[in-house]
Amino acid sequence: MAPTPTPTSLPSALPALQGPVALIGAGLIGGSFALGLRAARPDLQVRVFDHHPDHVSQALACGIASLAAATLAEAVAGAQLVVLAVPVGALPALFAELEPWITPGMVITDVGSTKADVCAAARVALADRMPAFVPGHPIAGAERSGPAAATSRLFDGRRVVLCPQDETDPAALSLVQACWEACGATVHRLPADQHDQVFAAVSHLPHLLSYALVAEFAGRPDGALLFSYAAGGFRDFTRIAASHPAMWRDIALANQQALLGELDAYVAALQRLRQQVAERDGAGLFALFDAARTARVRWGEEQR
Amino acid sequence: MAPTPTPTSLPSALPALQGPVALIGAGLIGGSFALGLRAARPDLQVRVFDHHPDHVSQALACGIASLAAATLAEAVAGAQLVVLAVPVGALPALFAELEPWITPGMVITDVGSTKADVCAAARVALADRMPAFVPGHPIAGAERSGPAAATSRLFDGRRVVLCPQDETDPAALSLVQACWEACGATVHRLPADQHDQVFAAVSHLPHLLSYALVAEFAGRPDGALLFSYAAGGFRDFTRIAASHPAMWRDIALANQQALLGELDAYVAALQRLRQQVAERDGAGLFALFDAARTARVRWGEEQR
Repeated sequence: MAPTPTPTSLPSALPALQGPVALIGAGLIGGSFALGLRAARPDLQVRVFDHHPDHVSQALACGIASLAAATLAEAVAGAQLVVLAVPVGALPALFAELEPWITPGMVITDVGSTKADVCAAARVALADRMPAFVPGHPIAGAERSGPAAATSRLFDGRRVVLCPQDETDPAALSLVQACWEACGATVHRLPADQHDQVFAAVSHLPHLLSYALVAEFAGRPDGALLFSYAAGGFRDFTRIAASHPAMWRDIALANQQALLGELDAYVAALQRLRQQVAERDGAGLFALFDAARTARVRWGEEQR
Repeated sequence: MAPTPTPTSLPSALPALQGPVALIGAGLIGGSFALGLRAARPDLQVRVFDHHPDHVSQALACGIASLAAATLAEAVAGAQLVVLAVPVGALPALFAELEPWITPGMVITDVGSTKADVCAAARVALADRMPAFVPGHPIAGAERSGPAAATSRLFDGRRVVLCPQDETDPAALSLVQACWEACGATVHRLPADQHDQVFAAVSHLPHLLSYALVAEFAGRPDGALLFSYAAGGFRDFTRIAASHPAMWRDIALANQQALLGELDAYVAALQRLRQQVAERDGAGLFALFDAARTARVRWGEEQR
C-alpha cells in the first residue's frame, strides 16, 4: 500500500491556530475535536490532561494528543487554546482551578450541552479573564463514548453553537469558530438562554422521556415479559436511554428551569392526548398523529 | 447470470397448506406473509382482494398474488386460508361481510395489532364459525408500507403472537402456526388480554409519546427553530412519529383501556421525575438514568 499521505494543503485551512492546544478531558467529543484540529494542522502540539489514566494512554495511542500532562497547570502553560471537554457538572471547579494559569492571548472554550449555567460559572471563576472564554456546544454524539471512539470527522456536516457573551473577545470567538470550521462543522450563534431553551426541548426532554419509559418498565414485576416483546419502535424510541447517566444527571440539573418548563408542557400535551383516547375522539387523534407525521417527514427530508 | 432458481426442497416445509389462500388487504404485512408462503410453496394459489386498485396491481406485479378477485366472496370461495390484513378498525365490518362465505375446513386469521377487541368482534360476527378464526399479530414492521415494500423475509427471526380462544379449532391453530414458521417466524401464544397489555406498554405507548412530542413542537411559534437544532437523539426518538396516522388512531381506540392505564403510569413516572429535577435530586436522577441504561443495554444485547 501507499505510505501514509502527508497532507500538504490542509495546514493552511487553520492558519490562526499555532498551538499548543490543551485538551482537558479526552472523551469522544474532546478527542474528536483534537483529531479534527490535528487533521487540519498535523504539526499541532496537543497536550492532554484527564483524570482517567486509560483515557490519557488511549489519547496518546490514537493520535489525539502528542503530550500527556501530569497537572492542569502543565497542560495549559503556554497554550494558545484550552479545550474544556468534561461533563458540565465538572466545569465550575475546573474554571476555578484554571483561572490562575490563564495568560494573555490564551483562548478557552468548552463543549458542554448547557450554556447559561456554564457562562455564569465562568463569569464567577474567571472574573476579568472572562473575555478569553468562548462558550460552545457541538451538536454531535455517537452511541459509543471515550477516546477510542473519537474520529476526526465526527463534526463533519454537523452544527456547533457558540454563545458569545457581551465581554467575549472577538478574536477569541473567531479562533474558536475557525477551529470548528476546520473540523467540517457549521457554526451558529445563539444567546445562551435561547440555546438552553432549544436544547431542553429537542434534546434534554427526549432523553428524560426515554429514560423514564425504560426505568418504568424495568421496575415492573412483569418487566422481563415486556422487554421480551419489545421490537423496532421501542428500539428507536429508547436508544438514547443507553446514554451516560452522570452526563445526563448533570445536564438535567444544569438546565433545570428550561427542562421543568418542557416537562410541564409535555405532560399537559399527554393529558390532552389521554382525554382524546378516553373520549374516543378518533378525528382528534387522527389530526394529532397526522400533524406529527407531516412535521417529522418534512424534518427527515430536510436532514438529508 | 444464472436463471431464476427453482426452489425444489422448500414445498415440503409447509405440507399442510394446500391453498388457495385469500389475502384480504395487500399492504406490507399481508403482502409479506403471502410472499413468505409462496416462497415455501411456489405452486400456491393466492387470491388478493383490496379496495385500493393500486395495491391489487402491485400485488400481482410483485408476485404477492396469482389472482385478483373483484369481490370478497370471489376471493374466499374454496379458500383453505383467509388472511385478513387490514387495519384493526376495519375488521368488525369485514368479519360480518365474510361470515356467509365461510365453508367447513376454511381457516381465518388476522394480523391486527390489538387482539381482545378483534376477538370480541369476531365472536359476534362469526358466531358458530368462531372456531375457524385464529387471532394473530406478527411483531414486524418497517418504515415503508404498501405491497411494493413487501418481502418474503420480513418475518424471518421475528415473533408472531397467536391468541387462540377457548373455541379455537386446534387444527386451524396448527395450520396458522405452520404458515408463520414457514416464513421464518417464531410463534408465541398469549391470552388476548395479556397481549394487549404488553403491546400497550412496549409499542402503543411509545408511538403516542413520540407523536405527542413532535405535534407539540410543530404547534409552537418557534417550531422551525426547534426542528433546525434537532439531531440524532431526536431522530431516533421520533422515528415512529412518521407512522401511519389512521392505523394508529385505530389501535389507540381499539386498545383504549390498556393504553389509558399505560398513559397514566407514564405521566405518574414523569411527575416523579419532574420532582427529582425540581428538588435537584442528583442521586435520584443518576439512579433512575442508570437503571434505565442498564436495562436498555441488556435488552439491546439480548436482541442480537
